[in-house]
Amino acid sequence: MPDTLPENSVGLVTPQLHHFDEPLTLRSGKVLNSYDLMVETYGTLNAQRSNAILICHALSGDHHAAGYHSMEDRKPGWWDVAIGPGKPIDTNHFFVVCLNNLGGCAGSTGPASINPDTNTWYGPDFPVVTVRDWVNSQARLADRLGIEQWAAVIGGSLGGMQVMRWSISYPERVRHAIMMAVAPKLSAQNIAFNEVARQSITADPEFYAGRYREHGTLPKKGVMLARMVGHITYLSDSAMRDKFGKASEQLKQASMNLGRDLRAGKLSFGFDVDFQVESYLHYQGERFSETFDANTYLLMTKALDYFDPSVDYDGDLSKAFANSNCKFLLVSFTTDWRFPPERTQEIVTALLKAGKQVSYLDIEADQGHDAFLLPVPRYMQALTTYLDRVKREVSGHAA
Amino acid sequence: MPDTLPENSVGLVTPQLHHFDEPLTLRSGKVLNSYDLMVETYGTLNAQRSNAILICHALSGDHHAAGYHSMEDRKPGWWDVAIGPGKPIDTNHFFVVCLNNLGGCAGSTGPASINPDTNTWYGPDFPVVTVRDWVNSQARLADRLGIEQWAAVIGGSLGGMQVMRWSISYPERVRHAIMMAVAPKLSAQNIAFNEVARQSITADPEFYAGRYREHGTLPKKGVMLARMVGHITYLSDSAMRDKFGKASEQLKQASMNLGRDLRAGKLSFGFDVDFQVESYLHYQGERFSETFDANTYLLMTKALDYFDPSVDYDGDLSKAFANSNCKFLLVSFTTDWRFPPERTQEIVTALLKAGKQVSYLDIEADQGHDAFLLPVPRYMQALTTYLDRVKREVSGHAA
Repeated sequence: MPDTLPENSVGLVTPQLHHFDEPLTLRSGKVLNSYDLMVETYGTLNAQRSNAILICHALSGDHHAAGYHSMEDRKPGWWDVAIGPGKPIDTNHFFVVCLNNLGGCAGSTGPASINPDTNTWYGPDFPVVTVRDWVNSQARLADRLGIEQWAAVIGGSLGGMQVMRWSISYPERVRHAIMMAVAPKLSAQNIAFNEVARQSITADPEFYAGRYREHGTLPKKGVMLARMVGHITYLSDSAMRDKFGKASEQLKQASMNLGRDLRAGKLSFGFDVDFQVESYLHYQGERFSETFDANTYLLMTKALDYFDPSVDYDGDLSKAFANSNCKFLLVSFTTDWRFPPERTQEIVTALLKAGKQVSYLDIEADQGHDAFLLPVPRYMQALTTYLDRVKREVSGHAA
Repeated sequence: MPDTLPENSVGLVTPQLHHFDEPLTLRSGKVLNSYDLMVETYGTLNAQRSNAILICHALSGDHHAAGYHSMEDRKPGWWDVAIGPGKPIDTNHFFVVCLNNLGGCAGSTGPASINPDTNTWYGPDFPVVTVRDWVNSQARLADRLGIEQWAAVIGGSLGGMQVMRWSISYPERVRHAIMMAVAPKLSAQNIAFNEVARQSITADPEFYAGRYREHGTLPKKGVMLARMVGHITYLSDSAMRDKFGKASEQLKQASMNLGRDLRAGKLSFGFDVDFQVESYLHYQGERFSETFDANTYLLMTKALDYFDPSVDYDGDLSKAFANSNCKFLLVSFTTDWRFPPERTQEIVTALLKAGKQVSYLDIEADQGHDAFLLPVPRYMQALTTYLDRVKREVSGHAA
């Protein structure tokens, strides 16, 4: 869409497909004999291979974190605000790697891929993957790219859980672990919302027990509902109020203005959409349901539910971090009610108890959980400051 | 189920059906030519008819607020903890009235009733009813029962909205307005959750555009999902943690205990129910879906969305209360995130601005929005203390 790309964009990028033939044993005990990972990289790996940063995506993310795939793209990658020349994750200095996780639906092997054993879609046969499985597959990608140690591994939400797992499973391979909007494990409420999302999908008559592709259909309505539930939990109450709660002058004229932005200026007295928040959620949910695979959505929510690195350490998270060898930056956001600051602080406390070096920031932001994806100035500034230090380390290391 | 009923129970009660023939013009402009209201009463109306209390129910409530319908009942009415001889709403002193609201599914005329004009179920043809419509129909019931003025009108959540409307529409007919866990209107987030619930129901293939009864079926899955979403918003995060988040000793033995009470002691690595919170929500949702009418659920959520008494007063709630003539008691609960204390305080502020007499209590309670239905000791004590004063007024009035 843009005639010229912004100067601080990584520009046009082309994803690369990496094929892996060494079998990967998953946490469930199942084995993936071979698989593909779809990867994007930005910037240049230095001669010392010391300036690589791994970006881990969250529930609905993919490998396309920055830049554009073509001049026709209406939007850049999902974290373009933070990645690019002169941006906090500065591609003039860092070699940035982002991949679509296993089980995803953006090119890496997942339920929407063809199972070589059956020559049809994996669908519901794709094994449940955990955060640990992802990190193991990412370590193999690092081997492939010749990266012995990441200068930093960075992620928010489910991405932050991958960062945590990296710092525990591969202590020698991470210099800095940067996590935003993250929790040590889901709360019962988080799991409950995920279960509602899963039920929405599996209850869709177009779901066909996960074999919808064989039936030439997609359970769009179920995915839309799942996304609507998710979306509500990503936004703060106040962000929704700001977006949809202001009575416009026009609507003040309406005979029955309820002060929450009536879509058509009056009530339907039926079951049509009355409020802007409803049509917004419909629109977002519908768009999502056209591109995101339902089986992948199920997998991603289970990966969230199952995450708890303290499990192997008698429930003591600080013991899980005992061997971690990196420095940590954690960021929470004041209005995030999905993973509120207190949950992030549980990780900080465990790290301090384990004697690790931790920086922690609670950022005043109105956007709820979504804030970790947005260019909140103090947050961007904090990333810049922290990564400037990493830059100096990397060049010191290089010198 | 009990061999004998508890001494402080109102005992066995029998609902009464009241038929109304005078047409009721609804807020939507539609007219109900005739309708029935299903009513229960407890205690005795005194000679001065001054000791009557109206209880207004919330989304899923009905007329059966206290006592038992038969010795086989496993549970008493929905607010039995507060209504009975010697209880806060003391039936030794008060005549308590509770009805199933219009559009309900427990005996009053609603979508599951037969439309006399068509000789089939109203279904989706039942008109959208608002809180104001309910209060108008309740005023007619008061006329029928010979009650000129209620000693108190009491309700929580959607019930509290009816109390608010009573104090505005019928200022001379209410002595005390008691509202718990209430907001002046829904937030955009509240509306969004309601819309997800509605979409869950209407997306169920058994919904048949609301004509499921003609198809000999019920959209149970959709109602179950709607209820699951609702249920999450009624409970606090901490209540869910207390209920489902404690790792039991037994589960500590399990090979992969995630600390959030695994249902079978280990992960399924599939899409079965793994966590107790999931099976709890399933169970509650399924039970609800077998008894609660889907069209009624849609109506109730729209009544919530549409409620905003400030609408006729240029958005100024205090002006709405200008003519109110009663005393007010408002109660909020610290962990209620559906209608948090700040929302209740908006009403308190408006009442004070309007120069009304208001008592307000924020009760420390762990149970979230649901707390208003539960025997939280300080809450029960507050109701008792307040209603003791009303008792004295009523008997003074009588003397």
